[in-house]
Amino acid sequence: MRLPELRRDFLRNTWTIFSEERRRRPSEYKFLKTSESLFDPFLPGNENCTPAELFAFRSPDTAPNTPGWTVRIVPNRYPALRIEGKPEGRAQGIYDCMDGLGAHEVVIETPQDKPLEECSLEQISQVLNAWKQRILDLTKDPRFQYISIFKNQGPLAGATLHHPHSQIMALPVVPEIIERMCQNAVRYYQWKQRHWFRDLLYQEEKDNKRIVYENNSFFVICPYSSRFLFETTIYPKRLCASYETCTTYEIDQLADAMKAILLRLNATLENPSYNINLLNAPLYVIRDNSPNSTLVRDCWCWHIEIIPRLGPLAGFELGTGFYINTVFPEEAAHQLRNVHLS
Amino acid sequence: MRLPELRRDFLRNTWTIFSEERRRRPSEYKFLKTSESLFDPFLPGNENCTPAELFAFRSPDTAPNTPGWTVRIVPNRYPALRIEGKPEGRAQGIYDCMDGLGAHEVVIETPQDKPLEECSLEQISQVLNAWKQRILDLTKDPRFQYISIFKNQGPLAGATLHHPHSQIMALPVVPEIIERMCQNAVRYYQWKQRHWFRDLLYQEEKDNKRIVYENNSFFVICPYSSRFLFETTIYPKRLCASYETCTTYEIDQLADAMKAILLRLNATLENPSYNINLLNAPLYVIRDNSPNSTLVRDCWCWHIEIIPRLGPLAGFELGTGFYINTVFPEEAAHQLRNVHLS
Repeated sequence: MRLPELRRDFLRNTWTIFSEERRRRPSEYKFLKTSESLFDPFLPGNENCTPAELFAFRSPDTAPNTPGWTVRIVPNRYPALRIEGKPEGRAQGIYDCMDGLGAHEVVIETPQDKPLEECSLEQISQVLNAWKQRILDLTKDPRFQYISIFKNQGPLAGATLHHPHSQIMALPVVPEIIERMCQNAVRYYQWKQRHWFRDLLYQEEKDNKRIVYENNSFFVICPYSSRFLFETTIYPKRLCASYETCTTYEIDQLADAMKAILLRLNATLENPSYNINLLNAPLYVIRDNSPNSTLVRDCWCWHIEIIPRLGPLAGFELGTGFYINTVFPEEAAHQLRNVHLS
Repeated sequence: MRLPELRRDFLRNTWTIFSEERRRRPSEYKFLKTSESLFDPFLPGNENCTPAELFAFRSPDTAPNTPGWTVRIVPNRYPALRIEGKPEGRAQGIYDCMDGLGAHEVVIETPQDKPLEECSLEQISQVLNAWKQRILDLTKDPRFQYISIFKNQGPLAGATLHHPHSQIMALPVVPEIIERMCQNAVRYYQWKQRHWFRDLLYQEEKDNKRIVYENNSFFVICPYSSRFLFETTIYPKRLCASYETCTTYEIDQLADAMKAILLRLNATLENPSYNINLLNAPLYVIRDNSPNSTLVRDCWCWHIEIIPRLGPLAGFELGTGFYINTVFPEEAAHQLRNVHLS
């Protein structure tokens, strides 16, 4: 089997991760529904079916890789990236490639196979805290430049295992889209002497048409230019570049906001598939004090996108990066706000 | 019903088209398989079920909107964009929006409901020629800045009607991704004094590992950094910014290349869903002679991407713009080359 490799799309300036190892997953080559097989490798008692755990919240009297945990993080059994390798690029003729260097971890969010949003607030807080702990740990490896945390829930969102889990990927390059978003936030600041994220929250409070939910630390908003039907974004009220600076209180509040919006989506869209994406700062903002790094640290704010997946992306979206949405965010927010949660 | 509206995602610099009209499509809100209902509005005899035709190849003795056509182009019955409106943006507080101005057309590729690739070369040539005619016509409207042509085949590629068709959208702005690709091609030229597309074809001929098919006018190549399994790109040998400059001979050759690769994909992947995207030049390259326009005209080359859709995009792809691929393009090309077409 070939070692994993990162290859650059020169014109788009994006990268594809080539990993033959992931082909061993049963879902490859065919579009299968989420595996409904009886065997669940993420259940307590099946700890030996996953690689050894990297992190867990567990009762103090229990040993690693045994039952007794509430959240458990393990290396992905079919990793797209590997911890071995050098972060330097090299030429292949006119093309650019790199070793498939990185980390690819799975966060088993709950011992039971039930959706995250149906778990207790304490359980959701533990998951969000586990994300923070892994970011703090992975950041120590200077070869990693960006940490992506995401969740695929349901077959239309790309989940291949039913048991609720999120994934953590440490990447040896900052994705173009993240860098572009950061630089646009910086440009806005340089032009206006104001922060984009602060202006956005001010505008949303003033308009009061796209806010779905609010608690002490967070707003949940249907974005003005939502790409997907009933898409929402969670913004912290305390603007800060990096997620891992969240306090314990803020993480509890984030759990509350996440549960509130996911239950509303389930009620409105009949338990849709969805993706959750943490858009965090590039790691350079906490590693150096170059002018660019300082500007991005001052102008960026981490946030979380929650994207219901009601159908596939089509050729238009793939070809242009434009999206077609049939529900204005003002209407989506209205519907989501008016859900009566029992 | 609200008029369609374009709204800008400030940080990404992309646009979402909001169109409540498209919500009337039966597939909205739920992920349905391609409609297998008995009624096919695109069959000859059902011309009155579509808006009046804009263009057709038809026998000289037949009237518009009656049978006798081989390719027929009509406005989309559920258009995302409308021909009425002004191309100027306006502010909504800190946000940017525009009228949902544009054109949205459907190319009915064949009178029979059978896949394009199973049609004769002459039929495929007519479709590709119809694309050219519509680009030439839509380009006359100075409000349009870019024309996107794409095809969704099969449910995983976003098709909602089974009868083979492609779609044409004229947009009032150049998509960020197209502009970025053009500018990267320009930068390459300014740095190297060589054309990216010429270097790419030279490299591919030299490596001879990723070429699937070649005829007098085209190469079909599995791209070095393929985002999708078994993705291929069709590149013209005569480098040229704009598709609509293709000669009749070149269009016939393109039909040959397209049929060859689609049949190979069908044989290798068991008739997968797929998207086809024409990546054409922004319309400014044929409208003005500004320095930027001249550079893009000299450095860009139209090409066509053919993307098998074997599963949904997941959170990682949506969040980072990176892709994970489990089949190296050298292997995909090897498999596709070795298909024995009867």
